[in-house]
This record gives sequence, C-alpha cells and structure tokens, in this order.
Amino acid sequence: MKQTPPSHEHIDDEMIKLEVNLDDTTGEWLGYVLDLLLEQGANDVYYSPIYMKKNRPGVLLSVLCSLQLLEQIKAIIFRETTTLGIRYYPLTVHRLERSFVKAVTELGEVTVKIGIFQGQTMQWAPEYEECKSLAQKHQLPLKEVYDMVRQAYSSSSNNPNI
Amino acid sequence: MKQTPPSHEHIDDEMIKLEVNLDDTTGEWLGYVLDLLLEQGANDVYYSPIYMKKNRPGVLLSVLCSLQLLEQIKAIIFRETTTLGIRYYPLTVHRLERSFVKAVTELGEVTVKIGIFQGQTMQWAPEYEECKSLAQKHQLPLKEVYDMVRQAYSSSSNNPNI
Amino acid sequence: MKQTPPSHEHIDDEMIKLEVNLDDTTGEWLGYVLDLLLEQGANDVYYSPIYMKKNRPGVLLSVLCSLQLLEQIKAIIFRETTTLGIRYYPLTVHRLERSFVKAVTELGEVTVKIGIFQGQTMQWAPEYEECKSLAQKHQLPLKEVYDMVRQAYSSSSNNPNI
Amino acid sequence: MKQTPPSHEHIDDEMIKLEVNLDDTTGEWLGYVLDLLLEQGANDVYYSPIYMKKNRPGVLLSVLCSLQLLEQIKAIIFRETTTLGIRYYPLTVHRLERSFVKAVTELGEVTVKIGIFQGQTMQWAPEYEECKSLAQKHQLPLKEVYDMVRQAYSSSSNNPNI
Amino acid sequence: MKQTPPSHEHIDDEMIKLEVNLDDTTGEWLGYVLDLLLEQGANDVYYSPIYMKKNRPGVLLSVLCSLQLLEQIKAIIFRETTTLGIRYYPLTVHRLERSFVKAVTELGEVTVKIGIFQGQTMQWAPEYEECKSLAQKHQLPLKEVYDMVRQAYSSSSNNPNI
Amino acid sequence: MKQTPPSHEHIDDEMIKLEVNLDDTTGEWLGYVLDLLLEQGANDVYYSPIYMKKNRPGVLLSVLCSLQLLEQIKAIIFRETTTLGIRYYPLTVHRLERSFVKAVTELGEVTVKIGIFQGQTMQWAPEYEECKSLAQKHQLPLKEVYDMVRQAYSSSSNNPNI
Repeated sequence: MKQTPPSHEHIDDEMIKLEVNLDDTTGEWLGYVLDLLLEQGANDVYYSPIYMKKNRPGVLLSVLCSLQLLEQIKAIIFRETTTLGIRYYPLTVHRLERSFVKAVTELGEVTVKIGIFQGQTMQWAPEYEECKSLAQKHQLPLKEVYDMVRQAYSSSSNNPNI
Repeated sequence: MKQTPPSHEHIDDEMIKLEVNLDDTTGEWLGYVLDLLLEQGANDVYYSPIYMKKNRPGVLLSVLCSLQLLEQIKAIIFRETTTLGIRYYPLTVHRLERSFVKAVTELGEVTVKIGIFQGQTMQWAPEYEECKSLAQKHQLPLKEVYDMVRQAYSSSSNNPNI
Repeated sequence: MKQTPPSHEHIDDEMIKLEVNLDDTTGEWLGYVLDLLLEQGANDVYYSPIYMKKNRPGVLLSVLCSLQLLEQIKAIIFRETTTLGIRYYPLTVHRLERSFVKAVTELGEVTVKIGIFQGQTMQWAPEYEECKSLAQKHQLPLKEVYDMVRQAYSSSSNNPNI
Repeated sequence: MKQTPPSHEHIDDEMIKLEVNLDDTTGEWLGYVLDLLLEQGANDVYYSPIYMKKNRPGVLLSVLCSLQLLEQIKAIIFRETTTLGIRYYPLTVHRLERSFVKAVTELGEVTVKIGIFQGQTMQWAPEYEECKSLAQKHQLPLKEVYDMVRQAYSSSSNNPNI
Repeated sequence: MKQTPPSHEHIDDEMIKLEVNLDDTTGEWLGYVLDLLLEQGANDVYYSPIYMKKNRPGVLLSVLCSLQLLEQIKAIIFRETTTLGIRYYPLTVHRLERSFVKAVTELGEVTVKIGIFQGQTMQWAPEYEECKSLAQKHQLPLKEVYDMVRQAYSSSSNNPNI
Repeated sequence: MKQTPPSHEHIDDEMIKLEVNLDDTTGEWLGYVLDLLLEQGANDVYYSPIYMKKNRPGVLLSVLCSLQLLEQIKAIIFRETTTLGIRYYPLTVHRLERSFVKAVTELGEVTVKIGIFQGQTMQWAPEYEECKSLAQKHQLPLKEVYDMVRQAYSSSSNNPNI
C-alpha cells in the first residue's frame, strides 16, 4: 500500500522514475495496468505518445514510486505488459505542506486541499471525488459545483489569500 | 480582418475546416504561421502531432474560417508552408450568445465573458489578457488574479447561477 | 440511452462528429465529461492533444453520435465544458456484422466478440470486462487470461479462420 | 495502384477521408498497415495519439484516398486492424501544379520538386530519396546534401524566386 | 555495432539516455536519423511531440545507449540534426532473460521470443519480421499469421504458462 | 537573469531538469507560465501531452535550468501552477562552440548562428527573429527570407562546408 508522505513541506530524495517503451501492448491492457500500479502504491503513473522505429505509434509508460516499492512495481510491469526491460533512475521531489479544510456550500461541506509553500498558502483546490458525487446527486454541472466550493472557500475567513 | 460574429446564439452553416499534413516545415516556421493566420481572420488555428510515413514525426495544421475567407487562407498556407495541397470540408458551428460584464476587484475592473445557452448563463470566464496585465503589474500569480475575479463575479448580484 | 445498432453489416449515414477545442477546461473535468457523454449514448468520445495560440497546450474533444442524439450531446458539452461553440459535420460509418460466442477456458466461459465482413470472420476479440474480472478473481496477469481465451477460441471447431 | 493526379493546379472534389479509433491493435501491426495502405494507392496515411475511454492510450488511423479506391481501402483496414467500424466523409483538395527540375551539384544531379500556385513558384524541395542515397554513398550528413542541392538550385538561372 | 547483451536476467548500470529538443529539424530528416542511430547500435530511439516556446510544435529526440557508445551517438546527433546541445544522464536497466523457441505452424516455423523473470516465462511473442514475411508471401492478414503462431506456441508442450 | 554560457564547446555538469504533471491547470495559464520561466533564465521550457489517471488528458511541464537557478524556478512553478510537488534530477549537457556571422542579402544583413563541433562547422541557421522582421517589413513569405539568407551564407567565402 502507498505510504502517506509526511504532511509538512519536505524534500524527498528516495523517489524512482521507471520507464518502459511499448509497441506491442494494446491500449486496452494499458488502461488496466495504470489502475493496478496506482493501487499498489505508485505515486503517479502516466502514458506519453511516442514515435518508435518501423513507423510504430508507441506508448511510453512512466511510473513514479518510492525506492522501497521498486521491486514490487517492476514485478507488476513485467507481469502485465509485454516488455523485456525496464529502465529507471532516482529523482528528488520537493513536496509542499498539505492541509485540508471544509468549505460549507448550500449542497453541504466539501473538502478543500491546500498546499503551503514556506508557510504561505500557495494552492487550494476542491476535492474532485466529492464534487463529482455532489454533481451527480444534484444533477448539476461539475463546473458549477466547483464554482460553489471556490466561492464558499474564498468568502470564508480562513482564506489568507484573498 | 476577422468579422465579429453576431452576439446572439446561432447556428453558422458557412464554416470551413482546412487541413494540411506537414513533414518538411520546421516548428520555427509553424509558430510564425499560426499568428499570421489568426491575424488574417481565421477563427481558430491549431496543430496536432501526427505519425507520418517513413518514421516521420509530422504536424497536422488545422484552420477554421468562414467560407468567404477560404481563398485568402489558402493563399497564406501555400505561401508560408511547404505543402503542395490543402484539403477542406464544410462544417456547422453552434455558437452561444455572448455578453460581457465587469467584475470589480480590489485591483480594478476586469471583463468577464459570458456564454448563454437557451437564455441561461452556461459559461463565464475572466478575460485572459486583462488578468495577465494585472498579474504583471501587481506581481501576483496569475491564478490569484483569476481567483479574485471569480470571487468578485460570483458575489455580485448579477450572477444568476450561484 | 444509446440505441443498439443492428447486428448485420451495414452502412450508417446518420452519424455526426462533434468537435471542441479547449484551452481553459482542466484535465480533471474532462475525465468526468468523457464518461458522461458515453452514458448518454455517444458512440465514441476521445481527446487529442493540440497546440493552440499563445503557447497553450490544449485538448480537442471529439464525439461521435447518431443524428438524433445531436441536441442532447450538445447540451452536455455546453453544460460541462467551458466552450462557447461546438462544430460538427456528418459522416458515414461502415459497420461489420457482429456476433458473440463463448470460449470455454479452465477459468470458465468468456465471451468472444466477432466481426464479420462480407460473410467472413474478420475480427475476434475476448471481451475486456470479462477478462478483467477473471484476472482479478484469479490473481492472474490480464495478458495470461487473454491468451487462455484466444487458445480456447482458436482450438474450438467453430473458428473458420485457423 | 495509386493514380498519378494531373500535374496542373486543380481542385479535386472526389477525395475521401477515412478514420478509425484503435485501442486493441498494437503499434507493431500499425507500422505494417501504414505501408500496406500506401502501396494500395492511398494518398496519405497517418496516425494521431488519442485518449480513449477507460484510460486507454489509443491511436487514430486516418487515410486519404480517392473515391474510387474507397472499397479497397476499407477492405485492407478491416483485414489488417481490429476495428468493427470505419467512418468516412468527403473532402475537397486544392493541389498545386507540380514540376520537376534537376539541380546540378558536385555530387551529381538531384531532382527538385516545384509547387506552382497561380503560375508562380511557391514551393521547391530536393527529393528526399535521392538526397538520402547521396548522403549514404558519400558518407555525408543528410542536411549537408540538402544544403548543396538548395545552393545549386538557388544559383541556377531557372529560379524565379531569388 | 550494437553489442548483444547477455541473455540471462541482469541489471545493467551502464546505460545512458540522451535527449534533444528540436524545433528546426524537419520530420523528413528525423525519420532518417532514427534509422541511422539504430544502425550505430543505439538500444532504442524514439520521438515525442512537445510544445516549445513561440508556439512551436517541436519534437523531443530520445536515445538509449550503452555508456561506451556515448561519444559515437553524440557525433551522429550533432552531424544529422540542427541542435547546438545534447543533454544526457545515466540510468539503470533491468533486463529479463531471453530465449527463443520455434513454433511450428502450417505456414512453417516461426521464432517466438520469450522473456523469463526469476525463472518463469513472463512474456512471449512471435517475431515480427518473420510473421511479416509470411503474411506477404501467403497474402494473409498479419493478425492471422500472429494468431497461427500463438495457437501453435500455446498448444505445444513446452509452454509452461497455459 | 539567464547567464550566457561560455561560447566554446564544453560539457556542463550543473544542469537540472524539473518535471511536473498537471491535470488541473488550464492551457491558458500554462502559456503564461512558459514565458515567465524563460524570462527568469530557464534554458528551456516545454510541454508534453500525457495520459493521466481517471481518463484525464494532462500536461507534463519540463524545465531545464542551471543548478543555481533551481530555487527560483521552483518558486515560480509553485506560484503559477497548481502542483503540490516538483520532481527533478541532474543532467549533463554537451554544448557546441557558437559563433555568429552576418549574411549579406538584398534585404540587408542577417545574423547566422553557427555551431562548431571539434573545430568543424556542424550547424548553421539564420536567426529567426531577424528573418521574421524582414518577412513582415517586406511582405515576403518567411521561407523565402530564409532561402535568401541561406543562399547568401552558402555563397560567401567563409563557409567551409560547401
């Protein structure tokens, strides 16, 4: 399982990026693999379109994970894709302090995730899954739910930015 | 020059999409062509990455314009790119009614563009160029200026949506 | 709801392709819209990366649907994205006859979808959702489940191709 | 076989664009299909990366061909890919007049293809395959061969542009 | 020339990835460079579409090679592209054990490449070039040849997986 | 401000590549950020289209800068995008010697930038901004201005390559 990183701002030196070029795994299987890798604790998984030899439209699979998950992530990639090799290298991650507050809207409370850089609120964003649930429940456009949450967050006294 | 379309909601049946595949025009030139086509009145211009024969990473140029601009747009494309042919076909565009209001922020007034679908406000967005100017003038993050404008617009009484 | 097309090979002249260029809708929202459009009966929905003016990495939303769904699909796009216009044009679709058979594997029966062109089996493929369920249930790589189904289908007497 | 279009400038109204979304055909097979379609007379074939449902990195196959080749091209696509449907629509192509001259370099003669728009030379480019052969034979960078041909063409008296 | 890596499973710590951003090299030349780099022993070469400054659709060239080939690969890139700089960094590659078996089909023998992870068959795939030759010789769809080889391989006793 | 690198050929070991995956920053904002990062001295900034979880079309921001600019670049990214983390790793850059000469055309002098590898001219290219100005001033196609400059440069005695 993915370990929750500490919530304070920090530099993480134990991250790994894995990469695999694929020209014989179908898009169908790749959609499946992405979810599997995230479930196993990868911090992020994404695909990039690449142009490979012999006119092949290929896909580059990239996975970010902590060093201690490296062997497990490699095993999933070897099991679930068709590659014969995985390349990887270490990288550093600067992570912001994270905190969570509740914005009170007429539809109910929604979590707002906040990113703090050197003690100052730098990012804030409504939690997607909660907004999605409200949009579906109330038959509202998702963007309208976001607007409500932003409005509620911005008007509240605990927003030092506005 | 680009003709301003009517501001009420309407169906436009006189639009054309032009397309050109390019494997021997450089990215440097294409950046230049995009601006030129917009200046001549094209409604939109964009590039897509494509995979062409002989392992060539190519670029698809797409231009949307009104039927009456077709010949002028073709002339620019033949002059400024390396293509020997331009393909095109007609399409229909459903355009929302547009209106503009001013949101009053502590940095000053900012225009908000509004899209109206069947009489109802469906989209609204701060004008990019105005927000950019304010961000540069006040040394603020662009996203913070957008937040201010959204907040001002949402709190104002003339917002029927929230 | 999406209407099931007839299962025999046919030419469908009542299809529409809708397109929207987006540079101010986030990826987060677009993931949501894709599912919504499919639920409402669109035949296919996909995104393409495009290069828009002012150095903007944008997204082209494309939707394929039957003519009778056009107004409903447009309403969803106007509600859920930030666009002020939708363009569209008619197209023709040549669809193969489809049939379904069961392949019997040691994990159980799995549906194989078959595409028939001019009376001849042209495509066949194990159903993704069924293979995915079996892979998860039996802790097997998805590709191994596919291999089992292919092997079962190929060995069975009702495969005229091999 | 591909029919040579007339060499004078003209508008061709009998072109078709075919499109197929693919999420279960591998890149390996697609490289093969591209060459096959070109050999059968398609005017152009290219792939675009697309984002399909269920997180699938997919590929859009686009083929441009004349109306009279439509059935043959469809048959190849159904035979060689995994699709159950092909969509298509007509388009118009404006083609420049083409002519060919020889540029005399110290490595020998090289063909230069010229595109003529309303009687005026608009494009000219060294033929790729000939330059490639010379680069390989003389162990020169391809770009240096192009420079030689451009230089030879530009200095020759039959270049009205410079 | 490219050195054959050992066929047993191993971790290779002497790999390099080189990268170059290109906005003034044409797609035509890039198709040529890809083949040249592979011929000189690069382990892999691929292109990615990127968005560069001034609205330029650019291309990222990536090359994977062993440390001892670094200087030769750099020389080719400087000779054949238009770049003024090449960036690179080391990476590690985990390679599976590889073995090759023959699958006996009614069209003849075809090589199947096998990837072995911790002593267990993890990947197997028909060799593309052999399948392509058979498809052309027998006028069969490439996918049908693959199906025949898979079927032959799966039924043979030396397949521990199925 | 960006420091001018030395003009002789050299290996630079103090470069950093920063990367951020974005699925909730709009294309509109990203166009703005690219210019800002270049103004602050980044050596290069580019975007790549990526496929992120939950069917999100995302964007990968990549920045190349010298080690001493790392903290300033990170501050801009945190201020102007919506990310909660930035990853980075060191890389090496091999830079060619650069020199500049003037090509004399009938439109006036234009700078040509030259790249020198191991004492030999390897690249040369007309300066884009100067060609663009001339094209606009003289109402000529940009490609024609480039042709003139190339022709002037190639014919001049100080071109050792041709």
